[in-house]
Amino acid sequence: MKRAALWRRIIRGIAPPVALALVAAACATASTRTSVVDHSEHAAPAATPTTASNTGGTTMTMLQMEEAKVKAFPAKTQGTGGAPLRGRLVNGVKVFDITATAVRWEVSPGQFADAYAYNGQIPGPELRVKRGDRVQIVFHNALPEASSIHFHGVTLPNAMDGVPFITQPPVMPGESFTYAWRVVDNPGTYMYHSHENAVEQVSKGLLGAFVIEPASKSWDIEQTLVLGDGALGFTINGKGFPATSPLVAKRGKRVLIRFMNAGQLLHPMHLHGFHFTVVARDGRPVESPYDLDTLVVAPGERFDVLFSANLLGVWAFHCHILSHVEGPQGMFGMVTALVVK
Amino acid sequence: MKRAALWRRIIRGIAPPVALALVAAACATASTRTSVVDHSEHAAPAATPTTASNTGGTTMTMLQMEEAKVKAFPAKTQGTGGAPLRGRLVNGVKVFDITATAVRWEVSPGQFADAYAYNGQIPGPELRVKRGDRVQIVFHNALPEASSIHFHGVTLPNAMDGVPFITQPPVMPGESFTYAWRVVDNPGTYMYHSHENAVEQVSKGLLGAFVIEPASKSWDIEQTLVLGDGALGFTINGKGFPATSPLVAKRGKRVLIRFMNAGQLLHPMHLHGFHFTVVARDGRPVESPYDLDTLVVAPGERFDVLFSANLLGVWAFHCHILSHVEGPQGMFGMVTALVVK
Amino acid sequence: MKRAALWRRIIRGIAPPVALALVAAACATASTRTSVVDHSEHAAPAATPTTASNTGGTTMTMLQMEEAKVKAFPAKTQGTGGAPLRGRLVNGVKVFDITATAVRWEVSPGQFADAYAYNGQIPGPELRVKRGDRVQIVFHNALPEASSIHFHGVTLPNAMDGVPFITQPPVMPGESFTYAWRVVDNPGTYMYHSHENAVEQVSKGLLGAFVIEPASKSWDIEQTLVLGDGALGFTINGKGFPATSPLVAKRGKRVLIRFMNAGQLLHPMHLHGFHFTVVARDGRPVESPYDLDTLVVAPGERFDVLFSANLLGVWAFHCHILSHVEGPQGMFGMVTALVVK
Repeated sequence: MKRAALWRRIIRGIAPPVALALVAAACATASTRTSVVDHSEHAAPAATPTTASNTGGTTMTMLQMEEAKVKAFPAKTQGTGGAPLRGRLVNGVKVFDITATAVRWEVSPGQFADAYAYNGQIPGPELRVKRGDRVQIVFHNALPEASSIHFHGVTLPNAMDGVPFITQPPVMPGESFTYAWRVVDNPGTYMYHSHENAVEQVSKGLLGAFVIEPASKSWDIEQTLVLGDGALGFTINGKGFPATSPLVAKRGKRVLIRFMNAGQLLHPMHLHGFHFTVVARDGRPVESPYDLDTLVVAPGERFDVLFSANLLGVWAFHCHILSHVEGPQGMFGMVTALVVK
Repeated sequence: MKRAALWRRIIRGIAPPVALALVAAACATASTRTSVVDHSEHAAPAATPTTASNTGGTTMTMLQMEEAKVKAFPAKTQGTGGAPLRGRLVNGVKVFDITATAVRWEVSPGQFADAYAYNGQIPGPELRVKRGDRVQIVFHNALPEASSIHFHGVTLPNAMDGVPFITQPPVMPGESFTYAWRVVDNPGTYMYHSHENAVEQVSKGLLGAFVIEPASKSWDIEQTLVLGDGALGFTINGKGFPATSPLVAKRGKRVLIRFMNAGQLLHPMHLHGFHFTVVARDGRPVESPYDLDTLVVAPGERFDVLFSANLLGVWAFHCHILSHVEGPQGMFGMVTALVVK
Repeated sequence: MKRAALWRRIIRGIAPPVALALVAAACATASTRTSVVDHSEHAAPAATPTTASNTGGTTMTMLQMEEAKVKAFPAKTQGTGGAPLRGRLVNGVKVFDITATAVRWEVSPGQFADAYAYNGQIPGPELRVKRGDRVQIVFHNALPEASSIHFHGVTLPNAMDGVPFITQPPVMPGESFTYAWRVVDNPGTYMYHSHENAVEQVSKGLLGAFVIEPASKSWDIEQTLVLGDGALGFTINGKGFPATSPLVAKRGKRVLIRFMNAGQLLHPMHLHGFHFTVVARDGRPVESPYDLDTLVVAPGERFDVLFSANLLGVWAFHCHILSHVEGPQGMFGMVTALVVK
């Protein structure tokens, strides 16, 4: 909740009167400058029919629902995921305590799901380490079923790989298991998730980002976007629109996005108005970076992209499989926005 | 219709006796040269049983339907999409008039769908501009519902981005909205489509190519292929096989294909007999072009590919998700052909 | 069958007491070193409840099924596919005899499917040729329906392209057709499959690898992985886990994997513990090879990847669309393992 509140404060704080004002301004500008009719009436929530007589009540209701959702963005919900966790230092080892529990998770306003969370978060805390670190992830299983953690894309000893009956016994309810290794991979974006009954457990929320931090950064702002399409519906960082968090940047800032897909479908993520540069795939730098406006992220893949937030406005940012983002009642699911101020 | 007719004339005109003759010739050649039996009887449309006694009536019927479809290719249907539109010059501004209407669309011979079209075309007219152009797209909404246009991948001011309630009010039935900006993107392949109730509206046909033309071309022939998988079924440029248009090239010519996917599924497009070179993605040149025979195009992506038509014949060209191209009654949907003469 | 037996012998032979011992050892090591409880009881197949009182009988049953499947890996089944075939030399031509028949195919222990096979194998024999070879593939159709063969990605005369009614008549039951050409493509990974009623025929097993061998190899071991998702379920080389074959390598060996997808879905193949280097796509070398741990293979695509087997252990290797690999009864389908000893 703290994080969602923070976003709202950022959007509202930096350039009052808030993002909605930006939206309203954009609409007003557009109407004034280029539209041949006055649209202001359509922006009103009133149920009065428009001058277009062939617009039935159903259509208006759909538009009103649509508008209400946009106005609610970013909507407040209980719970927030992906808080950075850097561990506690114990005899030179970075120790991370991760507890899996069953939770009720508010995906979008008023929509709750039976979910599983690491440390009460979906996605789980973003584990942040550095190359050369000795790390211990102490996993406590407080779920009603067996579990385990696999560190996806990470180089580690086989016994730490997290696959029940192959590299370890399943971690039973009430039990613990410690994953310990020395980080040898290069800086980049990795993932961790359950590897037991995973179709269900990952779908319900047992996943998170594992980030190996670089010695120095070539960007001003960064944001991890974990894509999901399981038991919680279509989500970005565990939330569906309008409860997703916008990415807010001051004009001219360099932005890094870490994409990862913990779902079962591909998601072509489209950022309006920009091309971003793909600089890393699966935690490895790309030799010849390339520019896209639509980045396909398949299950298990990670991509790091960089761009300069050099165009003012509220830019839609969403999966381009349209049924993952829009229905008869307007936008939902895998939609967020880039707000450049 | 003019375009389909044109294709038929090209195929029939350049090297009579038409493509079918090419097909027949190929079959005859194959039979003569390498088959151990005389297949000529199977090419006949008659319902007489073959010498293969274990071939039941059902199988023959399937084969006959299959053959009839291939022979009908390219089949004549009402309506054709993607006609190039370069706008009219008004005070130094290129003005494009785009009207959205509900239409009946003939997807393949005799198969009509309730569709939406820009200027009566599916895909909408191919808007062709040059870098530096000042453009105005005057959008008239003659649909029974609200709409808007988003220019996908194009750099423009936020107010021109076409997202209802975020960058503009929805354009109501009977109303208009003018999108105006100066083209700053590099030459390449972009897209435009509805961004209101888009799952339905794009699926029904509200999409088109937006091409920024290069100063000079390194190819002889070009063709845009807009892939669709929505309310009109599996389509290439708004038509399903056998109503799709073949790509016809004289031997040795350089061919550019602009792929774009306005659907919800990925389509791995496979060209028989050739590898093509991917030279651009999402409107940006690829630094290290690479060769493929099967190009995956996901929703929202665009790819430009180049190749030399150096092998004579009729080459199947289709999505390699086989259920998008073939059923018990033979080929349908996302199938076309490259004809090299 | 010979091949599966060979694998088992390799795993058991090189470093007894077999792969399972490796698994058991890994589990034991993990328990001893890092787990806070003794897991040894969970490794036992007995149905006795654990100390975790909230673990119901259902969960234990699931875990037991899971464990039993892992222990059965690699499970013996009837039939094996993809045996290398180099043809017989007739007057300077390499002649390959390929007969398609209907078969009963054991996908995983006890699970049989009505299938189609080339030379009784699924995938069909791996046809291995060299650039410059004159080849003849003599196709005999012993199926109850018409068929044909398309050589996917291969450059050949149009009449040899294998598309019924376009480049040849369908090959009727009881008939034969000879595909003949001179191999002009560069060394790499190609595919062959039915191009008649292909949704069904390919799905049932009419597919195989076509490999153009290099003059010299830069790897020690190679393995082709043909991915399938049709009538036989989710398969790797025609088998579902635990009947899939592990990839076994001595530590330090260079391994080449040739991926190809003959199905209808994309499969992001994830190798635990390693990044591999993509060195070729669709039979063409990649100019700037890139490293991945999760490789998306879409229908019709081929990828060659190289890596060094430098980490000991049993490494899970599976599709990361989790519903293709795991269900309530444990792993199935597109799962195999890399065993480094």
